[in-house]
Amino acid sequence: MTERPIVIVSNRGPVSFRWDDQGELVARRGAGGLVSGLGPLVIGTDTTWLAAAMSEADREAASAGVIEAEGFRVQAVSVPAEPYRMAYDVIANSTLWFTYHGMFDRPLRPRFDRRWREAWQAYRDVNQDFADAVADAAPADAVVLVQDLHLALVGPALERRRPDVTAVHFSHTPFPGPDDLSVLPDDVAEELLLGMTGHHACGFHTARWQAAFDASCEAVLGRRGRSFVSALSSDPDDIEAVAASPAAQAARADLDELLGDRAFIARVDRIELSKNLLRGFEAFADLLDHHPRWRGNVVFGAFVYPSREGLPEYLAYRQQVETAAEEINRRWATAEWTPVLLDTSDDFPRSVAALTRYDVLLVNPIRDGLNLVAKEGALVNDRDGVLCLSPEAGAWAELGEASVRVHPYDVAGTADALDGALTMSSDDRRAQAEARRAIVSARSPADWLDEQLAAAR
Amino acid sequence: MTERPIVIVSNRGPVSFRWDDQGELVARRGAGGLVSGLGPLVIGTDTTWLAAAMSEADREAASAGVIEAEGFRVQAVSVPAEPYRMAYDVIANSTLWFTYHGMFDRPLRPRFDRRWREAWQAYRDVNQDFADAVADAAPADAVVLVQDLHLALVGPALERRRPDVTAVHFSHTPFPGPDDLSVLPDDVAEELLLGMTGHHACGFHTARWQAAFDASCEAVLGRRGRSFVSALSSDPDDIEAVAASPAAQAARADLDELLGDRAFIARVDRIELSKNLLRGFEAFADLLDHHPRWRGNVVFGAFVYPSREGLPEYLAYRQQVETAAEEINRRWATAEWTPVLLDTSDDFPRSVAALTRYDVLLVNPIRDGLNLVAKEGALVNDRDGVLCLSPEAGAWAELGEASVRVHPYDVAGTADALDGALTMSSDDRRAQAEARRAIVSARSPADWLDEQLAAAR
Repeated sequence: MTERPIVIVSNRGPVSFRWDDQGELVARRGAGGLVSGLGPLVIGTDTTWLAAAMSEADREAASAGVIEAEGFRVQAVSVPAEPYRMAYDVIANSTLWFTYHGMFDRPLRPRFDRRWREAWQAYRDVNQDFADAVADAAPADAVVLVQDLHLALVGPALERRRPDVTAVHFSHTPFPGPDDLSVLPDDVAEELLLGMTGHHACGFHTARWQAAFDASCEAVLGRRGRSFVSALSSDPDDIEAVAASPAAQAARADLDELLGDRAFIARVDRIELSKNLLRGFEAFADLLDHHPRWRGNVVFGAFVYPSREGLPEYLAYRQQVETAAEEINRRWATAEWTPVLLDTSDDFPRSVAALTRYDVLLVNPIRDGLNLVAKEGALVNDRDGVLCLSPEAGAWAELGEASVRVHPYDVAGTADALDGALTMSSDDRRAQAEARRAIVSARSPADWLDEQLAAAR
Repeated sequence: MTERPIVIVSNRGPVSFRWDDQGELVARRGAGGLVSGLGPLVIGTDTTWLAAAMSEADREAASAGVIEAEGFRVQAVSVPAEPYRMAYDVIANSTLWFTYHGMFDRPLRPRFDRRWREAWQAYRDVNQDFADAVADAAPADAVVLVQDLHLALVGPALERRRPDVTAVHFSHTPFPGPDDLSVLPDDVAEELLLGMTGHHACGFHTARWQAAFDASCEAVLGRRGRSFVSALSSDPDDIEAVAASPAAQAARADLDELLGDRAFIARVDRIELSKNLLRGFEAFADLLDHHPRWRGNVVFGAFVYPSREGLPEYLAYRQQVETAAEEINRRWATAEWTPVLLDTSDDFPRSVAALTRYDVLLVNPIRDGLNLVAKEGALVNDRDGVLCLSPEAGAWAELGEASVRVHPYDVAGTADALDGALTMSSDDRRAQAEARRAIVSARSPADWLDEQLAAAR
């Protein structure tokens, strides 16, 4: 930790507000990896957390300045709704997210037109609003930890008003090298990198994203900024507590009954284009087709929950996911056996129950900043289940050596890898599972926080 | 040149065959940049040209071995139809082409399934058939010039049978670095690079593709092969002869009458996803919308001809192109003025006439191995027309310094660049046009051939 006061700045914060029946503001604790990881560490410390006001109640809370809520010292940042929507939907989610994950269908998208330029201006404005709010709220000499792609431009704007504070930026996504970054307009790529390097240091989950960032800075700016690598990790106590909860235990009992002595392949993901859900179903279908011994003897549980349904690509993707699951069940299901269990209910205890029970965990993203599910599975699984992991996940850097490699585009190869994982000897399963558990247990969210604070020195 | 006999190996050859009314085989000279560039150089020299038999008549010619036709010494390589189709459509055009141009919509494609694996086997077989045909036909101590992505595996297969010959591979496409190459299955990427590095040397149009190839070899094979850079160039005499032909002169007269004193933006391309035709129309629409002085005063001539319509993406793209052109005309056309002239007739003299007449030539690909049109325009244009060029075209390495840069995804920026090009001072236009002409005139197809032969030493 540090002697200096801490300010965390993120798009989504640890609490949200609503009005109760008496018209009084009531705080509610939020979810998400950042909050569950950092929450226990910062409560009771000299830490202020700023995040965007998402609702009218949040906006009323924003007008009160820094307040105490749910044990946190928080400040909602009030941003006008339409610029915020453009910055969030058009720039962060539809442009930067797609650029960083290499997901554009380039003959058709992106298209940077005049309306997109207005959205870029809105992104600048929202970043300026955040910088102003931090400048107003930050204690003297604070370390300001700016999170993720929504807020890449905060550093330089903050520096102008508050040269006493030290801002560190952390990217939870992948980062592209010069070839992929060059889909952005030239001036935008430059402004983005100037924004990021305008922080004291920029952090990434793996050396691969750091190297790509450094190469992009060299290519576009002709110089590097300061960068560092620090992988976020799951809190073992936290995830084990969920696994031991009555809700997760009940879900586990249901799952055990459903499965009997069948093998269980699981995945837990947002319904997100980068997660590669469709090829996962195709690989499972190919497993049944080309490795017939698994017919009737394996269940594929996809615990996947809707995400960003305001974007048409995501709505369409969800429908494709549902169709893919239905088609497999239509072709293969029998009176006793349903091969695919598709659960889109976003029930965290149930997802954790699946992580305790899997024989094989499929994590096959086409690109992924880190992937905490691979780590959570390593902590709570009690069957020495095998991790089938794509090298495009940031977690590969830590867990690749104790995983079965699956190439995200190689459907037939993934099917063969699933077969290999399902038939792995119990000695090998145990050795891999123990190695993974040791790797994941060796780090905690506190390490990640400490490394950001260290980067501020 | 060289003292050694030359063998050229390419998918499409300099002549094709048909049967005449008497059932006799008749040769016909083919078209395409490779043939028009190399043809005049190799006729009458000790050069044998092998290419795939595309028709039943070609297959009959193939059975005759090496024959003289249209001044060439040719051999058609007979490849079974279905493996050839799979190697050509599925591997060369739908997999390697898309990989090399970064054109996959990655959340959905590619998907490497068992059928794709059969196509990869067909690609291997076709390459083996070519290697066998070369091994049978090549004179002792020949230099074998293997062309392009259809034939990446010829070198090692040829080496086994004919260690006396020296095979050089040349890529007419871009080449991807490790990040983009990694969409291919691991074993396929390795086999591909082993195939290419199994030639004595591998050539590329620009240092950028060479560097990407070297980096991919390092990443996948742990070592580099020999590589070289040699940009193909247009033959000034050849293209100037076309421009002076009666057909081109008549087309030019028609164009002059149509245009009157209006400015003329032209593009000449295959209807190909990498050429970025749609954003070209959008940029022109934006030019009319945001730079109103051009309404009624500029015509955009798109001389674009159908390509690969056996692939559904290309058929759909052609329809989108036609719709985009129609929409602009529906919105802006007047009794006296049609803003977009869409010509899909594949009439080479007419395209060359457009190149003589443009005020601005738009070459805005999302990625392109070289782009000969940019060079041909530099040679025949007689109005000091401006080149608006994407840095993603290989020709950028030579012509970038004498062009206006257009970012392929920045539609608004491209519109502003077109406006800037149309309003450039005549001194600047002349200076850029003369610089381009000097650069392009300094090289000829003979240089390119010589550099491949030099790479064999």
